Amino acid sequence: MASSSSTTCVPLGNVKSFIINCIRNAGGSEIHGKDIAEVLVSADYRGHFSHGLNRLAMYVNDLQSGITIGDGVPTIEKESEATALVNGNNLLGAVIGKYCMKLAIEKAKKAGVGWVAARNSNHYGIAGYYGLMAAEQGLIGMSMTNTSPLVLGTRAKECTLGTNPIAFVSPTTSSDNFALDMATTTVALGKIEVQHRKGEKMPKGWGADANGEETDDPQKVINGGGLLPLGGAEESGGYKGYGLAMMVEVLCGILSGSQYGANIRKWGTTERTADLGQCFIAVDPSKFFPGFEGRLEDFLQIQRNLEPSDPSKPVLVAGDPERIHMKKCDDMGGIPYPSQVVDFMNKMGEKINVEAMKSVD
Amino acid sequence: MASSSSTTCVPLGNVKSFIINCIRNAGGSEIHGKDIAEVLVSADYRGHFSHGLNRLAMYVNDLQSGITIGDGVPTIEKESEATALVNGNNLLGAVIGKYCMKLAIEKAKKAGVGWVAARNSNHYGIAGYYGLMAAEQGLIGMSMTNTSPLVLGTRAKECTLGTNPIAFVSPTTSSDNFALDMATTTVALGKIEVQHRKGEKMPKGWGADANGEETDDPQKVINGGGLLPLGGAEESGGYKGYGLAMMVEVLCGILSGSQYGANIRKWGTTERTADLGQCFIAVDPSKFFPGFEGRLEDFLQIQRNLEPSDPSKPVLVAGDPERIHMKKCDDMGGIPYPSQVVDFMNKMGEKINVEAMKSVD
Repeated sequence: MASSSSTTCVPLGNVKSFIINCIRNAGGSEIHGKDIAEVLVSADYRGHFSHGLNRLAMYVNDLQSGITIGDGVPTIEKESEATALVNGNNLLGAVIGKYCMKLAIEKAKKAGVGWVAARNSNHYGIAGYYGLMAAEQGLIGMSMTNTSPLVLGTRAKECTLGTNPIAFVSPTTSSDNFALDMATTTVALGKIEVQHRKGEKMPKGWGADANGEETDDPQKVINGGGLLPLGGAEESGGYKGYGLAMMVEVLCGILSGSQYGANIRKWGTTERTADLGQCFIAVDPSKFFPGFEGRLEDFLQIQRNLEPSDPSKPVLVAGDPERIHMKKCDDMGGIPYPSQVVDFMNKMGEKINVEAMKSVD
Repeated sequence: MASSSSTTCVPLGNVKSFIINCIRNAGGSEIHGKDIAEVLVSADYRGHFSHGLNRLAMYVNDLQSGITIGDGVPTIEKESEATALVNGNNLLGAVIGKYCMKLAIEKAKKAGVGWVAARNSNHYGIAGYYGLMAAEQGLIGMSMTNTSPLVLGTRAKECTLGTNPIAFVSPTTSSDNFALDMATTTVALGKIEVQHRKGEKMPKGWGADANGEETDDPQKVINGGGLLPLGGAEESGGYKGYGLAMMVEVLCGILSGSQYGANIRKWGTTERTADLGQCFIAVDPSKFFPGFEGRLEDFLQIQRNLEPSDPSKPVLVAGDPERIHMKKCDDMGGIPYPSQVVDFMNKMGEKINVEAMKSVD
């Protein structure tokens, strides 16, 4: 596929309106469209393009085919002071995610912790979004989700685990925060596809071939191989990433009673509902030692001010690459998408009578 | 140092009595001695020799010098339905850890979750021990601790983070469980020291030199370098391990009001109290979808029954290597220590009038 380096910069508000209109015209409710728009645009604004506007076509298809439901509310099936089990009722993942994190936040404000598991859910965008919701209220926020199998457990030949991300966001006294949002694999599949298109080898630890052996050849990963857990091969600690991916599955699919591991439907298939499991945790730091936010800010600054190994690459903390990207968007007046993506989306919109996104002049 | 391959097998009860006697004769209370014995012997039994009997000399020294306190109880400084802040009062780490996890378990049984942060604590042995305490009560158990700086954050030249372990243990319907207990580094320092003694190179991702650059030379790690976070170099995902290490620090030092990051005293120094921070979490799975334990058992079995890449190396789940080691100990009637270690410990015991450990006949 030919790649073009031209970009089209679209103001955040315009991307949001476009998404809301697409969801509505695909049969979803306006309110659900707003939730999806919030989560997808947040991903693009933070520089995680793989989880933003890029995912809209999938949601539109899922609504049109009826495999996900475009209107309604999740149901609380069980509740205690600090916990809840929520049935997502097969609504769009962002709708379920926002509902569950709001509930976790309410519980944390009373009981100190809110721990909500969702079942019967769908792809919910970037995990970090839900952590940020809690941090905006002065709470520590965590979220995890299971996903379709693309990952090889250590020593295995078959992909039975998802990229199972962990998000952990903590607020400081300022708008600064610690915002970790990571798949429990070394890299996402998208990075391997990029190396493949460029015809380049991969660094160690990214993926394995169809026999489960580490490889530097992206072609072998794509042809029947799989992603490796964080750490790569067993000798370089991959069994720890494998353990983390399983931990996420325990807190998502197993705890909520959703599909889990190898039972989750294959990525890109829609012959049955996704029935994903997700986990949302909020913790109130004011229930612990006073001054949490100031100590965290100090800790972040200590790390940032360390002498770097390479003077051209400053030491960062989780959330800094996203802050750099958001600043860039602010300076440009919008999100710089590859023009191909904007064209593709506008064409999709045209088919369902949605006006094209207006870019920055 | 000459290495000897001879081992001395000591029954678990005999190791425990020896530890209790040593703690008592070093000035600690009998009850505290029992806590230490439980935690250290559990580590050895599970095959984590770096965190077992091996650590007793340090605890004895700390009691004798008065830098840790051998009698008393931790104090609850703040409490809500699901949370507590505990002042460890500079007691031995295992005493504080057991106290805090019991409190987290009580809270989880009522509110669904118990989340306890400890400050003013000390080295608490294997993190997994506290997770297992919860799993024995049918709960999910987690624990984390900060530790002295030995680890380089991604891009940094200076060690400002500890190996900051995460333990996560989940019960099943049987005695089986999922028991993850991992440092957030690729390996522990001990593994690098072993390569150094053998005069062998290290696999990629284990450590970096004094300039913060990844190296395969253990000598360079030991001479002013440091451990690398899980994932190794930045291109192989090390920034994720770095993020996890910082997450642990946020939940330990920052949340509890203890020392954190670069401020923690250097490993092996005792010029001031350790003032470590720790975190203990218990979650009651019965508050979520019914049948958690059965689903988990199924998930573990699916993974174990996968076809392995190398037929001689079966696919395992977290906790399996420990189960293999415990079975070996059971078959032998005790824990197989290197004879040097038993001799060293008995000599230390002799100085404080403690009878030598009796080995298996």
